[in-house]
Amino acid sequence: FLTDTSWSMSPKLTGEILRQLRQAMRNCKYFSEPIQAYIIPSGDAHQSEYIAPCDCRREYISGFNGSAGTAIVTEQHAAMWTDGRYFLQANHCLCNETPSQEDWLISVLPENSKVGVDPWIIAADQWKNMSKALISAGHCLVAVQHNLIDVVWPDRPERPSTQLRTLGLEYTGTSWQDKVTMLRAKMTERKIGWFVATALDEIAWLFNLRGADIEYNPVFFAYAIVGMNTIRLFVDLKRLSHPVLRDHLQLDAPIKPELSIQTFPYESVYTELQAICAALGPKDKVWICDKASCALTQVIPKAHRTPIPYTPLCLAKAVKNATEIQGMKMAHIKDAVALCELFAWLEKEIPKSTVTEISAADKAEELRSQQKDFVGLSFPTISSVGPNGAIIHYRPLPETNRTLTLNEVYLIDSGAQYVDGTTDVTRTVHFGTPTAFEKECFTYVLKGHIAVSAAVFPNGTKGHLLDSFARAALWESGLDYLHGTGHGVGCFLNVHEGPCGISYKTFADEPLEAGMIVSDEPGYYEDGSFGIRLENVVLVIPTKPKYNYRNRGSLTFEPLTLVPIQVKMMNTELLTKKERDWVNDYHRKCREVVGAELERQGRKEALEWLIRETQPIV
Amino acid sequence: FLTDTSWSMSPKLTGEILRQLRQAMRNCKYFSEPIQAYIIPSGDAHQSEYIAPCDCRREYISGFNGSAGTAIVTEQHAAMWTDGRYFLQANHCLCNETPSQEDWLISVLPENSKVGVDPWIIAADQWKNMSKALISAGHCLVAVQHNLIDVVWPDRPERPSTQLRTLGLEYTGTSWQDKVTMLRAKMTERKIGWFVATALDEIAWLFNLRGADIEYNPVFFAYAIVGMNTIRLFVDLKRLSHPVLRDHLQLDAPIKPELSIQTFPYESVYTELQAICAALGPKDKVWICDKASCALTQVIPKAHRTPIPYTPLCLAKAVKNATEIQGMKMAHIKDAVALCELFAWLEKEIPKSTVTEISAADKAEELRSQQKDFVGLSFPTISSVGPNGAIIHYRPLPETNRTLTLNEVYLIDSGAQYVDGTTDVTRTVHFGTPTAFEKECFTYVLKGHIAVSAAVFPNGTKGHLLDSFARAALWESGLDYLHGTGHGVGCFLNVHEGPCGISYKTFADEPLEAGMIVSDEPGYYEDGSFGIRLENVVLVIPTKPKYNYRNRGSLTFEPLTLVPIQVKMMNTELLTKKERDWVNDYHRKCREVVGAELERQGRKEALEWLIRETQPIV
Repeated sequence: FLTDTSWSMSPKLTGEILRQLRQAMRNCKYFSEPIQAYIIPSGDAHQSEYIAPCDCRREYISGFNGSAGTAIVTEQHAAMWTDGRYFLQANHCLCNETPSQEDWLISVLPENSKVGVDPWIIAADQWKNMSKALISAGHCLVAVQHNLIDVVWPDRPERPSTQLRTLGLEYTGTSWQDKVTMLRAKMTERKIGWFVATALDEIAWLFNLRGADIEYNPVFFAYAIVGMNTIRLFVDLKRLSHPVLRDHLQLDAPIKPELSIQTFPYESVYTELQAICAALGPKDKVWICDKASCALTQVIPKAHRTPIPYTPLCLAKAVKNATEIQGMKMAHIKDAVALCELFAWLEKEIPKSTVTEISAADKAEELRSQQKDFVGLSFPTISSVGPNGAIIHYRPLPETNRTLTLNEVYLIDSGAQYVDGTTDVTRTVHFGTPTAFEKECFTYVLKGHIAVSAAVFPNGTKGHLLDSFARAALWESGLDYLHGTGHGVGCFLNVHEGPCGISYKTFADEPLEAGMIVSDEPGYYEDGSFGIRLENVVLVIPTKPKYNYRNRGSLTFEPLTLVPIQVKMMNTELLTKKERDWVNDYHRKCREVVGAELERQGRKEALEWLIRETQPIV
Repeated sequence: FLTDTSWSMSPKLTGEILRQLRQAMRNCKYFSEPIQAYIIPSGDAHQSEYIAPCDCRREYISGFNGSAGTAIVTEQHAAMWTDGRYFLQANHCLCNETPSQEDWLISVLPENSKVGVDPWIIAADQWKNMSKALISAGHCLVAVQHNLIDVVWPDRPERPSTQLRTLGLEYTGTSWQDKVTMLRAKMTERKIGWFVATALDEIAWLFNLRGADIEYNPVFFAYAIVGMNTIRLFVDLKRLSHPVLRDHLQLDAPIKPELSIQTFPYESVYTELQAICAALGPKDKVWICDKASCALTQVIPKAHRTPIPYTPLCLAKAVKNATEIQGMKMAHIKDAVALCELFAWLEKEIPKSTVTEISAADKAEELRSQQKDFVGLSFPTISSVGPNGAIIHYRPLPETNRTLTLNEVYLIDSGAQYVDGTTDVTRTVHFGTPTAFEKECFTYVLKGHIAVSAAVFPNGTKGHLLDSFARAALWESGLDYLHGTGHGVGCFLNVHEGPCGISYKTFADEPLEAGMIVSDEPGYYEDGSFGIRLENVVLVIPTKPKYNYRNRGSLTFEPLTLVPIQVKMMNTELLTKKERDWVNDYHRKCREVVGAELERQGRKEALEWLIRETQPIV
């Protein structure tokens, strides 16, 4: 399951809400002068990829429910930029001709226009670029403190405040106190006095806490500010009343003063940060992510601000410790049990023509939920049959729901949150007889998957350098896929996390390190016909090849996902001996590890299916 | 032959010239207040990689003759940053710990320092970064119009003004008039009124002229400014007196007024650009490369300036037309003839122990010079034996000169300028019996070379995405090389040209297109022992694989270099069938094409050598 960041423009927005919004744009209650355009980004104040219902402002105004996209409304026009992965959904070609938001605004705005945006939901770096472009064209970008969508959204939901869950050392491997100490060591190293944490998964990771404020993401709304002697946590204070929680955070009896947490209401982060900044010495520096909200970033005077593309928490979180790795392995075994059961069940049920994309997805969730420490899904299941499979980020809806048959390719990309780890796996299968072309494409995708998974590369290599390995076999036959190859995966945290990945699109990723966990998911999509994707979550591990040039050391991947890859879909003649050996080794491991767990859980049919599906190929 | 752009700091500078320079830094004749530091970049006013003797200021002050590097002198300190590829030469490890020039300056400067630099030899983008960093630390960067090295350099050579050579349509395929018209079409498309050309190879290409002002680079000192109706050429006017030249440029009888060239002295570009800018309309835009000199860039008021990473000339020049491709092919055949002769001669001579790195390089030049339309070398020959081969940019000097023997690996990286094209080829050979390790490494390098050369990839792919293909076989055994894999090659122009290449280091390269020409040169360097590099110049060509996803079309490479690759150095057991077929196909082509030319030229011994060296492998 993957992200994509190209944008295309979708059809114009219309309707009553727009009329009200335009009225608000002219209403001087909210600003000194009317604004000529209003930008509605899709995010929340924490750069979250998934957002809570109260933050779905772009969806409210546009009706478009894709997980990324920006709407812009002017007096005359309204337009939306959607994430490239939705372009088939939006029935729009992903072309280079789409104007940027800046260019589009400049082309439609009257002279000397004011463009408004909520500074809490636009990132500081986006603000900077947009502002620069508008100024150079004679316009200006203004921060509108009162969100104008909220003004025209009478029944806007409340911000969620779900119960918090504490994670002990048996899950995290490192106490929050040790994490704070490590963070401060990084701060000392770089002569930084303060760190402002705004990303929800970083805050959850730092304090070894989880919430359920955002669907699929076990996070909670909060900010944190860490100084060399103080820790400030900003969160709905009602959430901190439970004794277990107070004890976990040592709120009532801190052991050391510098590890004592001061708690504040969520909303007071702005004024508290202002107070901290007012007391800064002339050389004091404050770290904040350059993707943090413009509102919070601008509280820090420029001379004191040190914006960073990735925070030390983001980097530390990406490298899993032994406990987390063990948890991720356990979670993937449980997840494989559920998927073996699902596929065994599908084999039996499909001939009856009663299984649909939605019911298959529901069944997968039901089977996962029977596993120990299941919390929920890690993203909406992509369950797609035939032509729906070619829509990269398809999500089955009643109006598109197809029935699984013996005649079409079935692609399921799904994952779950367990207390010990997060999973994300894609398998593409055929329950009848695949065509030669389907098999051929599947085999190229498999070759790409193996090329990445089995790659040996030097320490310090960035993931983007591995992306072409996943494509070489497809390219050789004139095929390709228009998305990246892999993303970082959290440990009982967000299924998409930075700062690593495998994509042709970025140079900004951090080097891969032993302990990092990413997905490996090449694909091929034949529009109107079928989609193929093959995804394992893989762990970066050290390896010792024959030589060790300049003592740099080498790395490779170990698959954490242990679900058989359908042999029926392979054209084994296209595989090299090395590739066939990889498949057989992988299937042997699936059989041993998942087979033992299926046996332990007494799930006989799934075990039989597993054994059938892991016969060696020749 | 390749470039590299990591920097490391080399030992401190000393001496009498430094003392004089520091005096000049305090002398208010050159500026209103003394400066505390002076930056001496290695370039000239045209961003040239190779420079004329009059521009070797950094070499004069530092004694370091590497082709890239910056020296900085303060009142107390002096330091130099050298290009990473020289790090073995400088006996210094290429570590990430080297401070940036900015950080180093900030660490040594007293408060409120002024740092001087000649604005003509610092690029606009470098000025911007340096200035920003210095200002944020309380210092400032000042443009010192009078170059302070020239002040302390009594016998500085004159700027060269060699005879210009005109190239007819039989070499260029496109007249300069058509090139100007194409440039103007690009300017119209982007609503640009003026284009300032500062790169010498772009100016030479535009006017179908060549010079010999800079060794190895057939260029001449000039600037050009192209408007929609005017063409201004800035060059030493003495050079334009010859009737052939006046006729080529239609100086005395222009056919159309908008294709009439106005000529100006080289030095008057500054005042002429000022005059143009003074007359600009409010919306007029001027294109200039962001690597152009700070001095010239700042003449253009910011509101009118459109800096671009690659100029339209750079992009147009990179895509060779049919005539240029034909010329490049002819040049490479002639070059192969010379190299076949060289290797046949070496085989005979080496047992006598009379051939050295220098004499072998001289022999290569002598043999090349016998070929039709030979002009000179395209870069200093890298001729290296045994441990010298591990120094990536080694150039044999009397004090390092080794004798070629039957016991050591010999690496020769060389090329020439012919009127019809530019060559650049590296071969690594053994005249006795290579060790198993030497063969193993050679074979991995060969596998990498083939992986790039035979790669099929979609139209629009950037060269950096192919870099890992060249490394995969080395990586698998824990080996690597610390330089890029390929660079653009000019046609009777610079052997290194933008905007394409194959390197892990840049995301800024332009997509590969049919007609582009790059090098493919992976290597392996065993410090203190041997160096291996295998380089062909390859042409990007369209190819038609089985499928054509989204009608994007596919590309691959055709080798232009046709010199046998030594089979003795291969461990053929490590090669796949595909790779063996590639070697045999390549050698068949060498034998057919170069064999015919050797026969035509009556060079029997070389022909016999070629036939011996192109026997198929099994």
